[in-house]
Parts: sequence; C-alpha cells; structure tokens
Amino acid sequence: MEDTYGKLISELAIENDKRIVMLVMDGVGDCDNEGRGTALQQARTPNLDALAARSALGLILPVATGVTPGSGPGHLALFGYDPLVYEVGRGVLSALGVEFPLEDCDVAARLNFCTLDAAGHVADRRAGRIPDSENRRILAKLKQALKPPVGLEVFLQTEAEHRAVLVLRGEKLDDNIGDTDPQQTGVAPLSPTRGAHKSSPTARIVEKLLGQVRKILADEPKANMLLARGFAKHPDWPKFAQRYRLKPAAVAGYPMYRGVARLLGMPVVARPTTAAEVCAEAAKAMADHTFVFAHFKYTDKAGEDGDLAGKVQRIEEMDAALPTLLAAKPDVLIVTGDHSTPPSLKAHSWHPVPVMMAAPYLRGGDGGRFEEVHCRCGQIGTIPAKELLPLAMAHAGKLEKFGA
Amino acid sequence: MEDTYGKLISELAIENDKRIVMLVMDGVGDCDNEGRGTALQQARTPNLDALAARSALGLILPVATGVTPGSGPGHLALFGYDPLVYEVGRGVLSALGVEFPLEDCDVAARLNFCTLDAAGHVADRRAGRIPDSENRRILAKLKQALKPPVGLEVFLQTEAEHRAVLVLRGEKLDDNIGDTDPQQTGVAPLSPTRGAHKSSPTARIVEKLLGQVRKILADEPKANMLLARGFAKHPDWPKFAQRYRLKPAAVAGYPMYRGVARLLGMPVVARPTTAAEVCAEAAKAMADHTFVFAHFKYTDKAGEDGDLAGKVQRIEEMDAALPTLLAAKPDVLIVTGDHSTPPSLKAHSWHPVPVMMAAPYLRGGDGGRFEEVHCRCGQIGTIPAKELLPLAMAHAGKLEKFGA
Repeated sequence: MEDTYGKLISELAIENDKRIVMLVMDGVGDCDNEGRGTALQQARTPNLDALAARSALGLILPVATGVTPGSGPGHLALFGYDPLVYEVGRGVLSALGVEFPLEDCDVAARLNFCTLDAAGHVADRRAGRIPDSENRRILAKLKQALKPPVGLEVFLQTEAEHRAVLVLRGEKLDDNIGDTDPQQTGVAPLSPTRGAHKSSPTARIVEKLLGQVRKILADEPKANMLLARGFAKHPDWPKFAQRYRLKPAAVAGYPMYRGVARLLGMPVVARPTTAAEVCAEAAKAMADHTFVFAHFKYTDKAGEDGDLAGKVQRIEEMDAALPTLLAAKPDVLIVTGDHSTPPSLKAHSWHPVPVMMAAPYLRGGDGGRFEEVHCRCGQIGTIPAKELLPLAMAHAGKLEKFGA
Repeated sequence: MEDTYGKLISELAIENDKRIVMLVMDGVGDCDNEGRGTALQQARTPNLDALAARSALGLILPVATGVTPGSGPGHLALFGYDPLVYEVGRGVLSALGVEFPLEDCDVAARLNFCTLDAAGHVADRRAGRIPDSENRRILAKLKQALKPPVGLEVFLQTEAEHRAVLVLRGEKLDDNIGDTDPQQTGVAPLSPTRGAHKSSPTARIVEKLLGQVRKILADEPKANMLLARGFAKHPDWPKFAQRYRLKPAAVAGYPMYRGVARLLGMPVVARPTTAAEVCAEAAKAMADHTFVFAHFKYTDKAGEDGDLAGKVQRIEEMDAALPTLLAAKPDVLIVTGDHSTPPSLKAHSWHPVPVMMAAPYLRGGDGGRFEEVHCRCGQIGTIPAKELLPLAMAHAGKLEKFGA
C-alpha cells in the first residue's frame, strides 16, 4: 500500500507558530451498553458541551469499517499515519509497551514462558501464568547465564505474568525470523530458521540463543522454556516533526503511548496520569511546541473493566479539568479518542470515535453535545482518523494550496 | 496513482441526447466569516432556494480532506479527472492562464524577469515588479533578437508585472528540464541541465536560449535576465468527449478556465462575464451540446478580495439570472463551485463545496436552501468532486449497468 495522502500532506506542510492540541481520551467512544446509553451521553459535561457548541463535530474511523484497532494503530491514525501502511510488528509493540528505548538497529520479539514436557513438547503455552516476580527471577537468571555472540547485545524485560520482551541489538540484524510459538500444545517449539527464514543470519543467532535458554532453564519446574514471536525491527518511518513541519510534544503517563510517540520521534515532555494533570501539562507544553498530544488513559481502563459508571466518572473528571487547557488558548483544539471501548464489550471495539475540533474558519459551531449521536451529524462527517490531523493543520494555516 | 474510478465510468458511458449543465460559481463555498455566516447563507436567493427544494443537495471535496485546491485541480475534479492522478505542470497552467493555444508537442514554462548584479547573481527575483508595459516591451525585443535552432519555435507571452510564459514548439521535445530560478537572491541562476536533467536534449536547448537572453538583455537596467521554472509538456490525457461520450461546450469568460477546458479538448463556445450572460449563453449552448460547463468568476473574486458583501451580491446576481437557464430545461442541472473562497481568508480554502443537482429519479427534493449547512445533510452526502459528473450522467441515463 502507498501512503499517497500522507505524502501529499507532507509536501503541502508549512511551518507557522499556531498551536494544535490533540487531547485523546483513550477508548472514549462507546455503544449504548444494552440501552443504558453511551458513557458520553450519561456524563454531566458542561465544559465539553460548551466547547461542542462552538466546535466542529464528527466521527473518525481509526482503521476501516468494522475493524477494531489496537492502541498502536489507533494512535498512528491520530498522528496521520495510515495504520494499514504503517504496520508495527508485534515485537516492536511489546517493546514499546514496556518502554524499552528501541534503536534503529534493534530487533524485538514478544516472549512467552512455557512448560515443555519430557519429550520436549509444549505442555502449557503460558507456563501456568507464573507471577510477575517469578518472571523477573527467571529473566535475571537468563541474563546472567546467556552467552551471546560477540557484537550482539541481548535485552530481556518482564512484561507481566508469563509475558516478556526480547530485544537484540547489533550490526546488520534482520527480522526475517520465524515464530517459535507453535500456537498449540503437544508439539515441539518451531525452529526460527525454518522455510523462508533459512536465509536469515539473525534467525540462526536466535536459534543458538534459544538452545542456550533451554539448557539454562532445564531445572525450572514450570517456566522451562521461552516461545518467541513477532520478530520485528524498529521501523524506518518518516518522523512526525519532518513530515508535518510541526514541533511536537507528547504528554502521556502510560508506557505504550509514550512508546508510540517515540516511534515517530515525538519527545515525551510530561507523564501525567490524572485528568487535571493531563490538561495542566498539555497547557504547559504549548509554550514551546506547535503540536501537543495529550493522553488520558482511564476512560479506556474503565471500559476494559466493564465499568460504565467508572467510565462516566472519568469523562466527568476530564470535563472538570478542561478549563485549564482552554485557558492556554490553543489555536486548534481536538478532543477525541484512539478507538471505542464499550463497557458492555469490556474491550476495544470497531465503533467510529467521536471527535470535536474548536478552530477558526469553521462553518459555525455544530451545537449539540460531545457524544456519539450528535457527532454523527457534525460538519466533519465520518472520516478516516488519519485525515484529522491534516484537517487541523488546514485550520491552523499549516497547509499550502495544491496546484495553481 | 491509478484512475480506477474514471476508467470504470469511461467504460460504462453511453451516448444519448440528454443534456447536463454544470453551473460553476467559482469559489462559492465559504466558512462562517467569524460568525457573520457564509455568503450563501446571507444571500437572498429565491430562485436557487426553489431549485434546492426539489434538488439533491450535498458537499464535494475537490482534492482531499484539509487540502486547498488551486483552480486547475478544482476544475479537473469537477470534470471527473482526479487531480491527484491528473497533475498539471506549472508551466502548462501558466500557458493556460494566458490562453496560449498549447499543442501536444509543446513544452511550457513559467518565466520571471529578474535583476542580475555585476557578479551575475540574482539581486531581485522580480526585477522590481516592472509594469506590464515594460514586460511587453522587453519580450518584443527578445522575440526579435532570439535565434532559436532550426525546427524550434519559441513563444513568449506577457502574464503580468514580472511574470511571463515561455512555450517551445518542436519535434521530440522533452520536459526533463531543471528550474533555473534559484528561489533566493545572492546566487547565480541555476543551470537547466544540472543533475538528472543532464540527459535531456531540450534542457541543452534551453541553456543556449537563456545564454542568448542574457546577452540581449545585458543593457536593461532592471529586467536583465529571465528565470524559468515548471517546465512541462501538454499532458497526454483522455479527452473529455471520448472519455464520457458527451458533446461538451465551455461557456467561460476567464482565460484560466477556458484553458482547463481546452486541456480536455472541450471547445469554448462563449465568453460571458456577467451572471446574466453566463446563464443566457449556457442556455444557448444546450441547443447542440450534451454537456455545458458554465463558469461564473465573480464569486471567487469577491472572496479573494475579502469582500463578503460583494460575494453575497454576486450570488444574488446569479440567482436573478437563473430562470433563463431553467427555462432551457436541462435534463440534469448541477450548481456548485470548484472550491471555497471564504472572504475571511481572502484565499481559496479546503472547505467542502456546496452542490445541488436537479435531476430525474431523485429520492425526493432535499428541501432547505442552497447553503453549506443544508447541503451537508443532503442525499448526495459528502463525496469526492470527481464523482459528481458520473452521478449526473447516471441520472441522465448515460451510464450502462456494471456486470450482468
């Protein structure tokens, strides 16, 4: 796939000192939760509503109709990177999730501790979901005993329970490495050098390392082997600042979102967690950045927990915090989410995400409230999420005319 | 990029005698002009409103979300040519702008008179913005003294102030010619044969011609050299008549729009300027053409001047003229613009453009007025501008079924 639209926007981008703020309430979109209404519909949000009255409303589609986005694709789309063009390898996403400072030469993979039986077959793909402390103990043991080849650094980092992250750092590594996780029990782990991966020098290195792992862990009762999948290099993508001629800053308290920001070369300037902190830090970052990405996690967390009342409360917290951000007078202010997380689904969903944009040169304010049904009728329409940032740039005078 | 949609429409096109009229009010779309409302909202337009009540309403996107179209791309989209596929070189657009009758073998470039200092460096890229009369005098001097190689014709035409157009006509010319405008002062003009342009025979011809220009203009106090950029050939595009099996006519008073029409092989049958003349000439052209493009310039001009009251007045003039066109009973009548030109921006903008289409086989009239907010809610929806003509062709019975 070609990034035609993104390249066009990049060619038209010009620098000025107008400031765009993108406030992301993670997972804010919703369905009607079996008739109880969406969280945005239920929340008392006088500040968001007042902003909606003078803003453009709409819905954004992070990936495509019916497609539920992960956090990585959801945010890439918000940053104008088509998630179907800019695919992140699972290993890289895992490394971002534990906030490993990935470098361009690195290869990352997702690891699972597993249990092998006496015949060397996978008996449990999750090693009985060992506790985090066990995970850390065994990784420490591995780090001490592993003997990687000269010139290669091996990083191992605990994620949670049986999950961990592997990062290889060295010269000329490739990521043409087969998953070793067979995705079933009763069979042996797969070889990373099988089939099309035979030609990969790095796959042969991985094979030897996993051989060492097996010996080192032989005396472990449960977690006596590692399964690896999603080997991927740090992608060589256009950096946000160059692509849009913006000076960006990320204000985000969770590792995953800081990781996505860093992937695009966007510096993380603050790590707030509460809604009040998010708005205060975003306002501060506006002083010397022309694009501020401000991330609020808890709306998504409540959705994942199936906690509708909690999601409503988190939205009301953000509503209460909003005046701090408004007082800093961003030239264009976007309020939206990276995807929907309906409490009745307890998971991310495919529903288009409400968005509002306060900006100059609108066709009037759309009136109404900041909630899914009003947003559907707004002047932004329902657009691919990747078009949102360019639209904000247009309103901020940051895009030149196409053709004479 | 592939013109998949355009090719499909071309394959499905069939001929009949139904007449489609596309009335383009240049730059008619607007934003709310700091709360004063759009020009269409403010105008008293009983005839346009009556038409809207029985028409399909919608919005069209000339290029893409957030992208401000130039007049060339804006009109190509209205004619069903995706402006991202059918990109016009700047030289060609300049030639169209002065209504130079470009032929398929021609190469055109945009010229600027400049001032070189004693060291041969550009001291002023615009030669002090010499008056048009000076421009004409110096071009006449050049025409007399230039000795082009055998088989090459050189055309020079004044645009305005320091701007002019160069057209080379000959066999086997190419347009792989470097810009000589360095886009800055204090440096020498660039060579047209540098870098990737080294292999171009035409670039070598241009280099020699510019060498002659320098000698001929050596005694001029201000405009003592020409800078050239945007060398481009007349594009080899499918002609409008063949592509759609329509018999087209352009009714347009301004050179630029006649030029775009001619680029697609669309004959210009009248050059009206006032709204009354535009409607009268369009009605007349319907007698023996199945597609009439009628262009009204003044709505855009008022927008560019920041003259909201003027834009309102121009719209009201068109409203008063409309009955003449309606009386000729087009089978499908489209009223729209090529882009938006908000007076508060004094420039083209990225805002989707209002459209209405009176046609048989609608899903009822959309009611409401012909203005931005009502159009947003109409049955056409918000569509790429390139899809508008095919939609009109469908309503006129000019597209066959796809598949059995």
